[in-house]
Amino acid sequence: MINHLCVIGVGLIGGSLSMSLKKSGYVNYVTGLGRSVENLQKAQQLGVIDHYETDYGKATSQADMIFISVPIGAMPEIFVKIEPYLSKHTIITDGASAKHSVIGVAQRELGIKINQFIPGHPIAGTEKSGAEAAFDSLYQNRRVILTPLEENSSADIEVVRKMWEVAGANVDEMGARHHDLVLAGTSHLPHVLAYSLVDSLNNVDDVEEIFKYAAGGFRDFTRIASSDPVMWRDICLNNSEALLAMMHHFQNNLDCLKTAIERMDGDKLLELFSDAKKARDKFNM
Amino acid sequence: MINHLCVIGVGLIGGSLSMSLKKSGYVNYVTGLGRSVENLQKAQQLGVIDHYETDYGKATSQADMIFISVPIGAMPEIFVKIEPYLSKHTIITDGASAKHSVIGVAQRELGIKINQFIPGHPIAGTEKSGAEAAFDSLYQNRRVILTPLEENSSADIEVVRKMWEVAGANVDEMGARHHDLVLAGTSHLPHVLAYSLVDSLNNVDDVEEIFKYAAGGFRDFTRIASSDPVMWRDICLNNSEALLAMMHHFQNNLDCLKTAIERMDGDKLLELFSDAKKARDKFNM
Repeated sequence: MINHLCVIGVGLIGGSLSMSLKKSGYVNYVTGLGRSVENLQKAQQLGVIDHYETDYGKATSQADMIFISVPIGAMPEIFVKIEPYLSKHTIITDGASAKHSVIGVAQRELGIKINQFIPGHPIAGTEKSGAEAAFDSLYQNRRVILTPLEENSSADIEVVRKMWEVAGANVDEMGARHHDLVLAGTSHLPHVLAYSLVDSLNNVDDVEEIFKYAAGGFRDFTRIASSDPVMWRDICLNNSEALLAMMHHFQNNLDCLKTAIERMDGDKLLELFSDAKKARDKFNM
Repeated sequence: MINHLCVIGVGLIGGSLSMSLKKSGYVNYVTGLGRSVENLQKAQQLGVIDHYETDYGKATSQADMIFISVPIGAMPEIFVKIEPYLSKHTIITDGASAKHSVIGVAQRELGIKINQFIPGHPIAGTEKSGAEAAFDSLYQNRRVILTPLEENSSADIEVVRKMWEVAGANVDEMGARHHDLVLAGTSHLPHVLAYSLVDSLNNVDDVEEIFKYAAGGFRDFTRIASSDPVMWRDICLNNSEALLAMMHHFQNNLDCLKTAIERMDGDKLLELFSDAKKARDKFNM
């Protein structure tokens, strides 16, 4: 049971955690904090949070748990602002999609209080953003990866794990670097490809007509290109190494496929498509 | 009203057309023809077709309308086989995703009977295939593109148009080359990217783990990689020119994005992602 939860950044990710924990009665009181007072007011009206604060001291000094769910680029400032108010018992965790870079920032800004920060990443989301997009079942049967630090106590890790389990998630632990590589492949690369595809079609003549004849496959394929551009800019900048490696790997594969088309090599195409279908079908089960 | 419809290739596309027209009573009798007797038997059991034939003469000589819905690579043989049995009043149309190449084949194999072939393409489908995947509402509110030939009579074009409208579709007409370019962008390129992404992840170490942590975005993004490999091999080979042009265009865009990440150019990334989101959001409405 968490008495006082402070959510910094009340959007889809932070708002959905709050709603889920409030619904199950696992949290007593949720304070929201964020840049946009308009969004915070909406969040309070919708019952996503209990009330909001714009003052970091008031919002965080009494909190048992602080959940940071802002774009990664805004995180250094958040750590700087909360550090002076941190009680010894307060646990901080986050929802950032790139862990190694965020841990570096936290180490720099939290100093000796770094032991209070348990890095985490709920692998869930939709292409929507803002408090209005939040819903209490977002984390049901989804995975949350924790990438704990040497400095963390097992008891604190357990508190964060329990919180996510109450929200319906399955919690795993792994190293930050490994997390970043896995996510580069399954999430960061697909987002970059979807953005790039829509952007390249958007620069073709007759763009209106192109989108007019797009069907369900295209709709599904490009849905993630509606995701928040600031969030994804920050992910690209903060997981650049793993993402660039995955992009390089993908580009080689696509070049191979392009060569097969140029050479009219049907056997090669069939092999490549069959392998991919097999892998995708297995994943579907 | 169509008295006798012959569907060659009773899978998702052909089967769904048959089911839809049968349901509305617009067709009196549907004969199925295809390579796999097992699939044809299943189609008959499921009521997708009224009965099946394995003999081309019996299946097609009495047909008022022949709908060819087989992978493009199998179409030359189909044209050769049906040509001797074609009555003067029989109309042929098809569902192939690449039109220019198919028209060339039809011209070669049908000779002076080319006027009876009205090329068409229903822009609908799922990643599933086979008679079992067919359903009667597949074409509801979907688009069908006809790419008529100079040789076609307006009356025959009208019959094909009416058939698709009864199946629930909105029918447009355009030139075959233009169709192929539009579809290369909205359908063929996305499929190739999805296959290539899944294939490249499938060649990474810890592939099991990568797929384990894939979330909804990845699932949607890669769904089309479960599509029929033979069908997509044939599409790539038969729309190679337009597809290669689109791939080239996309690769340039992706290179641009990669360079922005390498240079840590956040402004460029934000611009690119914002443009893409705007285009995708507009499409969503």
